[in-house]
Amino acid sequence: MSDALVPGSYDPITNGHIDIIERSARVFDKVWVTIFTNSSKKPLFSVEERLELIKEAVSHLDNVVVDSSEGLLVDYARERGISVVVKGLRAVSDFEYELQMAQMNKRLDPKLETFFVTTNVEYSYLSSSIIKVVVANGGSIKGLVPKHVEEALVAKLDGRGC
Amino acid sequence: MSDALVPGSYDPITNGHIDIIERSARVFDKVWVTIFTNSSKKPLFSVEERLELIKEAVSHLDNVVVDSSEGLLVDYARERGISVVVKGLRAVSDFEYELQMAQMNKRLDPKLETFFVTTNVEYSYLSSSIIKVVVANGGSIKGLVPKHVEEALVAKLDGRGC
Amino acid sequence: MSDALVPGSYDPITNGHIDIIERSARVFDKVWVTIFTNSSKKPLFSVEERLELIKEAVSHLDNVVVDSSEGLLVDYARERGISVVVKGLRAVSDFEYELQMAQMNKRLDPKLETFFVTTNVEYSYLSSSIIKVVVANGGSIKGLVPKHVEEALVAKLDGRGC
Amino acid sequence: MSDALVPGSYDPITNGHIDIIERSARVFDKVWVTIFTNSSKKPLFSVEERLELIKEAVSHLDNVVVDSSEGLLVDYARERGISVVVKGLRAVSDFEYELQMAQMNKRLDPKLETFFVTTNVEYSYLSSSIIKVVVANGGSIKGLVPKHVEEALVAKLDGRGC
Amino acid sequence: MSDALVPGSYDPITNGHIDIIERSARVFDKVWVTIFTNSSKKPLFSVEERLELIKEAVSHLDNVVVDSSEGLLVDYARERGISVVVKGLRAVSDFEYELQMAQMNKRLDPKLETFFVTTNVEYSYLSSSIIKVVVANGGSIKGLVPKHVEEALVAKLDGRGC
Amino acid sequence: MSDALVPGSYDPITNGHIDIIERSARVFDKVWVTIFTNSSKKPLFSVEERLELIKEAVSHLDNVVVDSSEGLLVDYARERGISVVVKGLRAVSDFEYELQMAQMNKRLDPKLETFFVTTNVEYSYLSSSIIKVVVANGGSIKGLVPKHVEEALVAKLDGRGC
Repeated sequence: MSDALVPGSYDPITNGHIDIIERSARVFDKVWVTIFTNSSKKPLFSVEERLELIKEAVSHLDNVVVDSSEGLLVDYARERGISVVVKGLRAVSDFEYELQMAQMNKRLDPKLETFFVTTNVEYSYLSSSIIKVVVANGGSIKGLVPKHVEEALVAKLDGRGC
Repeated sequence: MSDALVPGSYDPITNGHIDIIERSARVFDKVWVTIFTNSSKKPLFSVEERLELIKEAVSHLDNVVVDSSEGLLVDYARERGISVVVKGLRAVSDFEYELQMAQMNKRLDPKLETFFVTTNVEYSYLSSSIIKVVVANGGSIKGLVPKHVEEALVAKLDGRGC
Repeated sequence: MSDALVPGSYDPITNGHIDIIERSARVFDKVWVTIFTNSSKKPLFSVEERLELIKEAVSHLDNVVVDSSEGLLVDYARERGISVVVKGLRAVSDFEYELQMAQMNKRLDPKLETFFVTTNVEYSYLSSSIIKVVVANGGSIKGLVPKHVEEALVAKLDGRGC
Repeated sequence: MSDALVPGSYDPITNGHIDIIERSARVFDKVWVTIFTNSSKKPLFSVEERLELIKEAVSHLDNVVVDSSEGLLVDYARERGISVVVKGLRAVSDFEYELQMAQMNKRLDPKLETFFVTTNVEYSYLSSSIIKVVVANGGSIKGLVPKHVEEALVAKLDGRGC
Repeated sequence: MSDALVPGSYDPITNGHIDIIERSARVFDKVWVTIFTNSSKKPLFSVEERLELIKEAVSHLDNVVVDSSEGLLVDYARERGISVVVKGLRAVSDFEYELQMAQMNKRLDPKLETFFVTTNVEYSYLSSSIIKVVVANGGSIKGLVPKHVEEALVAKLDGRGC
Repeated sequence: MSDALVPGSYDPITNGHIDIIERSARVFDKVWVTIFTNSSKKPLFSVEERLELIKEAVSHLDNVVVDSSEGLLVDYARERGISVVVKGLRAVSDFEYELQMAQMNKRLDPKLETFFVTTNVEYSYLSSSIIKVVVANGGSIKGLVPKHVEEALVAKLDGRGC
């Protein structure tokens, strides 16, 4: 059976991400959770901090590997024999962007499949960005990220506005 | 590894459906292609005709089973130990309806995952309905359905309008 | 303060509808829950049955009136001094249709406002149609409609397919 | 310069349609306004009635021909040397369906272009269906259809509900 | 009856905003028009300038208060006993973002309702951003913003490009 | 017959753009391909470089003029007697933004029409942005841009990440 890749910027990991990773880990033999750093957006957490936050969040899952990469997703997958990319979908705007990326990746490597999963409805409005806005303004995000991520966010952002 | 279910009404099967089935067959151990007959829409082809058209279209795939069911998708999957439903997505309107069904199925059976795949761009505008409209008005659908499906459609519909 | 109208076909009322009605009842002085029967769709429950199911479902709300009408929504509102229509929104496709209706109603009566509310995420995938499909195929809808609606649905549909 | 085709079911023609036809008539040498009758929907007005309503509505435009056809759009266009189809777009759901039709028509005849135009914002919520619902329930549609169409609608529908 | 909050960045206020504020002022006892300054976008006008432009634009409305805040919307509303947030909706993309914010705010304060209103069709394509682009390139925005806002924009931007 | 304008930032031109330009050139007497430089986005290629890349890409089309402008689109079109703007549409999000621009341009000059065309499905996922991301990460874009554009991109971006 195939290995799967759950790529993202994970800045930071939320309960929505964890939901997708847990679902993937039930279906696939091995799941790669990989931070791709080639985006132009300036992150709040460094790659090392993000790797640590993910590792603690998925430590209960045996078949999950946490990693980061500066390269192209299709090259990363090909080198590791990964045949499936899993992406979470929340809204229509997600859908269009992800569909565009999936078609491009399909062209770059026709053997790589992209599977879309919907998050639990409870997390349907959740994103790393909205989490950062709430914490920066002193709001509570209990239940939306793991406890250690909440603490890391508060340490960086609380009271600072944004 | 998990078995997968590719449900549909397949009235009739198109190259877009076959693309999704082939992709699923590469990733999963066994793929169930199942006609669910509980829809309220009146089909053009009988269940038996649709089963025959699908069987001929997927005869090159070893790990694909063709079936039909009158029951609820989640019950069907549970009884056969199927853990993943695979659905093709073309457009935003597809996406919203399928997302609604996936959330409902998740509630009916939390262990059943729904994975969405995008069809090859070449088939992005293809549906069983549009195929029927074209044939009924004497248009050519060469390359959009297998040859034997084209013949079955022409036998039923050609020149009849719709 | 203004009275509000929560129109619908309510065939039958679901927990998603009740959520919208409760939210409206907290904000407005008086809330009209009115079945409009001028739709072309053939209902499962008669107007009388639907009125009974709604009445039992909202009996805990003091400022809610349950009614039915065969006329035009804007006339109904004008005659009762209702200044606001409240509509639930789930998905993008809802949004476009409701926006079209709201603009038309605005033209028919410029003093009538339409306010859109989002349902609780828990009910974001819920509709009267999907409820009927699930019951007709023997699935459980516990927690998605009130107990007395579940019983009425099972009495009408169970095992019948649809 | 190219001739253009503005296809539709025109059941009946509205001010939104007329807006699209007028815009096309300013850009193209000759504009064909053609009722395609191969749809499965049951119309309110007969083909002859619809042709009359359109003819009166566009009688001020010199370069517009009114016609009807039972065939396939691409065949109709090819036989008359028409190289462009013009379709009005209001909403996202329009867009997806029309895009699907445009891609299919492109495949059936690669030389036929489909151009989409947006209606005047004033008519952005207008459709033949919503017009019929309003008239059937006794509402006013003044300013949304020409006077002679309003009279034809009232003669057919007024007070009848629908 | 409830007080309502119409939040925004108002950089600057347009006729679309004023339409939403006027509608809210007809339905609610008191309407707070509040600039939230915690967005990361760099504004064209300072908070003080924006407050002045809004005050002049809504001076004909008795029950409207103009304010600004650096905090979290839900805290602001709770401290003032505001129970309803009113947001204008134009397009599908607006809808998805606003729905996400509404669900997050609902979680942060379950007693706070968000009501969505559609602007007058005449302003359906209007945004502060598009207004700034047009003025920066010397285009006319007469009828899209109040006269004093037009003058303020021209003073800041005219001929400067952007 | 009318002249048409195909505006864009063309940073750089892709096969999707060329598809739209070729279609326009078949329908209209003269086609203006014009870079508008008033966007706030920082381009990868200078205006001069972009003009050169376009000129080479459309050299096989007799009735196409390549140009750039710092002004407002409606002024540019009016001064040259251009009566139609042609824009490519790929996705729903494109559609909403372009519709907003078309309505604004219609207000600025009621005689200017905007026609939307869909690209060939083969290019439906293509954009200048995604092309730049792929090249910056060492991926192949053969078949998605003309050869000379590919070389210009590799010279600027290869191995640099982005």
